[in-house]
Amino acid sequence: MVYVTRRETFNAAHRLFNPKFTDEENLKIFGKCSNPNWHGHNYVLEVVVKGEIDKDTGFVIDQKELKRIIKEKVTNKMDHKNLNIETDFMEGVIPTSENIVISIWQQLVNEIKSGSLYSVKLFETENNYFEYRG
Amino acid sequence: MVYVTRRETFNAAHRLFNPKFTDEENLKIFGKCSNPNWHGHNYVLEVVVKGEIDKDTGFVIDQKELKRIIKEKVTNKMDHKNLNIETDFMEGVIPTSENIVISIWQQLVNEIKSGSLYSVKLFETENNYFEYRG
Amino acid sequence: MVYVTRRETFNAAHRLFNPKFTDEENLKIFGKCSNPNWHGHNYVLEVVVKGEIDKDTGFVIDQKELKRIIKEKVTNKMDHKNLNIETDFMEGVIPTSENIVISIWQQLVNEIKSGSLYSVKLFETENNYFEYRG
Amino acid sequence: MVYVTRRETFNAAHRLFNPKFTDEENLKIFGKCSNPNWHGHNYVLEVVVKGEIDKDTGFVIDQKELKRIIKEKVTNKMDHKNLNIETDFMEGVIPTSENIVISIWQQLVNEIKSGSLYSVKLFETENNYFEYRG
Amino acid sequence: MVYVTRRETFNAAHRLFNPKFTDEENLKIFGKCSNPNWHGHNYVLEVVVKGEIDKDTGFVIDQKELKRIIKEKVTNKMDHKNLNIETDFMEGVIPTSENIVISIWQQLVNEIKSGSLYSVKLFETENNYFEYRG
Amino acid sequence: MVYVTRRETFNAAHRLFNPKFTDEENLKIFGKCSNPNWHGHNYVLEVVVKGEIDKDTGFVIDQKELKRIIKEKVTNKMDHKNLNIETDFMEGVIPTSENIVISIWQQLVNEIKSGSLYSVKLFETENNYFEYRG
Repeated sequence: MVYVTRRETFNAAHRLFNPKFTDEENLKIFGKCSNPNWHGHNYVLEVVVKGEIDKDTGFVIDQKELKRIIKEKVTNKMDHKNLNIETDFMEGVIPTSENIVISIWQQLVNEIKSGSLYSVKLFETENNYFEYRG
Repeated sequence: MVYVTRRETFNAAHRLFNPKFTDEENLKIFGKCSNPNWHGHNYVLEVVVKGEIDKDTGFVIDQKELKRIIKEKVTNKMDHKNLNIETDFMEGVIPTSENIVISIWQQLVNEIKSGSLYSVKLFETENNYFEYRG
Repeated sequence: MVYVTRRETFNAAHRLFNPKFTDEENLKIFGKCSNPNWHGHNYVLEVVVKGEIDKDTGFVIDQKELKRIIKEKVTNKMDHKNLNIETDFMEGVIPTSENIVISIWQQLVNEIKSGSLYSVKLFETENNYFEYRG
Repeated sequence: MVYVTRRETFNAAHRLFNPKFTDEENLKIFGKCSNPNWHGHNYVLEVVVKGEIDKDTGFVIDQKELKRIIKEKVTNKMDHKNLNIETDFMEGVIPTSENIVISIWQQLVNEIKSGSLYSVKLFETENNYFEYRG
Repeated sequence: MVYVTRRETFNAAHRLFNPKFTDEENLKIFGKCSNPNWHGHNYVLEVVVKGEIDKDTGFVIDQKELKRIIKEKVTNKMDHKNLNIETDFMEGVIPTSENIVISIWQQLVNEIKSGSLYSVKLFETENNYFEYRG
Repeated sequence: MVYVTRRETFNAAHRLFNPKFTDEENLKIFGKCSNPNWHGHNYVLEVVVKGEIDKDTGFVIDQKELKRIIKEKVTNKMDHKNLNIETDFMEGVIPTSENIVISIWQQLVNEIKSGSLYSVKLFETENNYFEYRG
């Protein structure tokens, strides 16, 4: 069993905001991250797939294929987008990095051979990152 | 003469857009960077000051002082902000990184001992950066 | 269950030295790391907390709160300090990175919701790092 | 139980190629990675050893010793080498990073105290890495 | 005048070898870098263009255009190639990084507005890099 | 003319302290950096040499030779040392990074072909670095 990681990047705008709360409450909970005029990040995404090595190719999964899936299912919908407004699979979800990694997992889990998606990791800044393993 | 560099970071939203042009023209020139719903970056800023070393302190400039100036004049006005709407010293300027480094230079040049600001460098993504030396 | 990581840094002096041994024996075991005049590092600390996402905030733990805890319990007592002499919670412990990660774990485990501290990782140089998971 | 990681680097040439297949088939499977004139990488290797801390030294394993083992058993045979032709312990194996991490594991597992090798991780480029845990 | 940097990467095989010398002399001069079976690197290339900012776009040069030029003139001819054998514009040149940066400069200087190419920088490993400014 | 950079690292303890001043004044000027029990850093050093390329070798300077000089003249005297007490060429100098880069320059300038030392750069933390060009 080998763990294969693919790293991709995307740049996006977002705002932490819960419509259940007033603007004041949002500001108290989320601080400057709730700025109604948005802010943004250079997100770094790492997708880890585990599996046995194919004897003929020496691959667990072809990196080109993994890259294509991530691009089609995830980064095309997030890169240079507003995560609150434009990313269909995040609709109705507060775009914290915790929620983003789960949403990305759900986008990918059925695109990759059953049982082989191992981890989705997201770096929001150089000082924090978030991981979901299903 | 020693060159002293201070590195700071800020996260912001922006959009490349020239009001002289139609939406179509903006899209043609700026591509996905003109998304009307914004996108954003983890910007990395490096400010370089040059000068002679003070005999008593061994410093060209006290890093704490340089940090305070950058915070007060630049990052407080850019961190977790929308650069098109909220950063007063960028008003009327297309927030390309080229324009941002010049605007930051202008914010800093009179705050630091005359003639000693040497360079303002801005990393927009891991694949590009921009520098202005006055 | 999402894993949330906070990265912090501190700069400290230390010396590897076991008072049970002679200076010669210490030199043999620890090499230049036992220099009686000290040496030091830019340590990088990563604290990982695991937990369920709070529905209202989208957070496992508020990064600002996690940062405050690490600062109060750990980095305030280690940053710009001598780990052999000044860090109270390291008293009587040889300050190898192995011992440091366990000591930091013990400082944090009761400050964070029961069962949610997952890992403490410490980078001593760019060529080695150390992790403790309890 | 503490996890201790040692990071080493090596530069090597390789080619992805399966002699069972024609050149055309190799090109279809491996793309430009099958270039018969070779290409190469700055590989980054991380070896993780887990164990209890020795009371007298504060070490799980002496970094100098771990470094020596990796050098003797692995990097001396891979650094500035052609992995397809010159690395004896890779003979007959397609040098994908998946196969390399397993081969390195086999080189190391009997050199380190029984049961204590935890992981071998290899970064091939800045956008992918591969891990084997036995 | 703003300095704009574009960063690109390529992976290649090479060998340091001067046909004027015997194999023994090559080994003495170039050490393990003269391995006749090749070795390779993940090269990182930074191209710096200087110029005035276009009022209408806020750009010195469009990053997409700069990227296209570097790809067409440089990385398409170097990525996953053998620099001694396959890179036409390096023919007859010992592929040290010093020679590579000059060769890349010559490939680019006529493709970018006259006088605006400022620097070509190449990172061969994490411990060395090379720069040419014309 | 090509600029060749060699990167080396060293770990050291130091303290910012001017004997002309009282302890209170030192604390006021240098803050926690004046801690009498020392603190330390993982310093990163970059030495830049400029010169013409030798036709026979393709080198400006052999990296192995540059590495040897830096080791003998600089890092052997600074690595795992106390810069205030043990580094002979820093005697009587407050070990700010500004003073360190000048001291390192003086150690190197006569060891490298006349006129070819171009720059000495020192990274003290990830947020500041210092450069001297003679």
